[in-house]
Amino acid sequence: MINQLMNEIKKKNAPVVVGLDPMMKYIPQYIQKKAFDTYGETLEGASEAIWEYNKGIIDAIYDLVPAVKPQIAMYEQFGLEGLKAYKKTLDYAKEKGLIVIADVKRGDIGSTSEAYAVGHLGKVAVGSRTYAGFDADFATVNPYLGSDGIQPFIDVCRKEKKGIFVLVKTSNPSSGEFQDRLIDGRPLYELVGEMVDQWGSSCMGDEYSYVGAVVGATYPEMGKVLRKLMPKTCILVPGYGAQGGTGKDLLPFFNPDGLGAIVNSSRGIIAAYQQEKYAKFGETCYQDASRQAVLDMLSDINQAIGRK
Amino acid sequence: MINQLMNEIKKKNAPVVVGLDPMMKYIPQYIQKKAFDTYGETLEGASEAIWEYNKGIIDAIYDLVPAVKPQIAMYEQFGLEGLKAYKKTLDYAKEKGLIVIADVKRGDIGSTSEAYAVGHLGKVAVGSRTYAGFDADFATVNPYLGSDGIQPFIDVCRKEKKGIFVLVKTSNPSSGEFQDRLIDGRPLYELVGEMVDQWGSSCMGDEYSYVGAVVGATYPEMGKVLRKLMPKTCILVPGYGAQGGTGKDLLPFFNPDGLGAIVNSSRGIIAAYQQEKYAKFGETCYQDASRQAVLDMLSDINQAIGRK
Repeated sequence: MINQLMNEIKKKNAPVVVGLDPMMKYIPQYIQKKAFDTYGETLEGASEAIWEYNKGIIDAIYDLVPAVKPQIAMYEQFGLEGLKAYKKTLDYAKEKGLIVIADVKRGDIGSTSEAYAVGHLGKVAVGSRTYAGFDADFATVNPYLGSDGIQPFIDVCRKEKKGIFVLVKTSNPSSGEFQDRLIDGRPLYELVGEMVDQWGSSCMGDEYSYVGAVVGATYPEMGKVLRKLMPKTCILVPGYGAQGGTGKDLLPFFNPDGLGAIVNSSRGIIAAYQQEKYAKFGETCYQDASRQAVLDMLSDINQAIGRK
Repeated sequence: MINQLMNEIKKKNAPVVVGLDPMMKYIPQYIQKKAFDTYGETLEGASEAIWEYNKGIIDAIYDLVPAVKPQIAMYEQFGLEGLKAYKKTLDYAKEKGLIVIADVKRGDIGSTSEAYAVGHLGKVAVGSRTYAGFDADFATVNPYLGSDGIQPFIDVCRKEKKGIFVLVKTSNPSSGEFQDRLIDGRPLYELVGEMVDQWGSSCMGDEYSYVGAVVGATYPEMGKVLRKLMPKTCILVPGYGAQGGTGKDLLPFFNPDGLGAIVNSSRGIIAAYQQEKYAKFGETCYQDASRQAVLDMLSDINQAIGRK
């Protein structure tokens, strides 16, 4: 799957992933009204509104980008009904040829990590049969528990030809509280980065490994160090746009070949119509605003990293 | 809810939580057969088998212990159907008067952490109404992202009078890879422990704070240090039984009043009937084996910590 991701990035000339993190306040009123008219102001109603909203965005951007990244928390908050919208979104994105990065930030140990890996990326056995639970292509994983937590994901990835992105240096202001603390003179995130490189060496695709890393666009200097520390690692870069990262901040995350990173934008794309810049589209053409925002983002990033 | 947990521990004289981590291999054949006869070897069938199995255990132990701890990964691996069994289990446990610690190990930042907190502990707004998604009493949370990831949970806990347990030192063999690394001469887990103490000081119950900690029974020496570092923190202690922790290892996790910790056992209780010691119960009386295993665990722990 890492090969497929790299190929799609090249083919579409788009090292970009659209974060599908629907919040109710982003969803156009007419979509909410339609869903509530049918299901009432219920969890089912919220789920239907989310699904309709996502579908519109996917239809508008699937030919431009290689991947989408649904943030499962935004669905999980609506309980089982919300997770139905998550699954429908995931299936529909794949139907449209998009690679799905499940932003689940799971992480546990042994058989529990295995269960997460199986549920999100693999297949689970039921009697003599097997089934895929959520069936994403990649998942994000938290490293705090060490190798015991990561290895079961790697085993499933190897079997299913899928991948993970391990949190190394996150984009938030307080990420340094633990991640930046110095250990033998080097910050914790570097040690995690080294482990990511090591884990990845056991499961290489053609150019990049099955084990990617998450490094926030808000920390370009650290991105530069981590890029060198993990040469075969694809870096998933959140924090562009709404969180403050700009095109010029992104160069350090890429290898000299212009590959090796994929930049996420969520709010900046899916709620583009709420920005002054794209207000002319209005809420009924929110999809078109999202499409324009993707085109602008591609232009910004490709210019910054020197791609045509 | 932390007050309620402490009161129930005292009332039942049981600083013990039963981990509801159902794996198919633990579920008696007759339960699997009955579920598969009705639903086939499908995800629905697995979900039904898990639910029946859990119900039997809850019925057998609810008067002995204050709480259960369902591990959501074991349900999530069966996708949406598995999560239905999770929700049914959670609701049923509460119906039987048990406190539910959702072992979800979630952790993200800002509005995303808020969505997890709302989904698992709080209420989500849909138009003019609000709904509880999963409605657990406590949730486990991963600290790697720092305060930005924890604060939204604390806000929801304060509003709903619920609580969290933050991963400090996990029970697995490789937990030391990052958690034990020295920062200014002290291991990372101590720094996390200090933050837990600090986060907790802003939301105190009567004796203990809303912010608990997870510290593995497999590391009693570290437990001793952390116990002193976080005097107002309830410690959730996994790793007893199947992972190797024994009664005598648990003393350091308790305060001198015999409170301040709650010890989890999963496999050792729910699959007790598969152990030689409890084999006489047979799989059809698996619940009775689980009950006996709880009684034996209570006796072991209360003896070790000097409670009657």
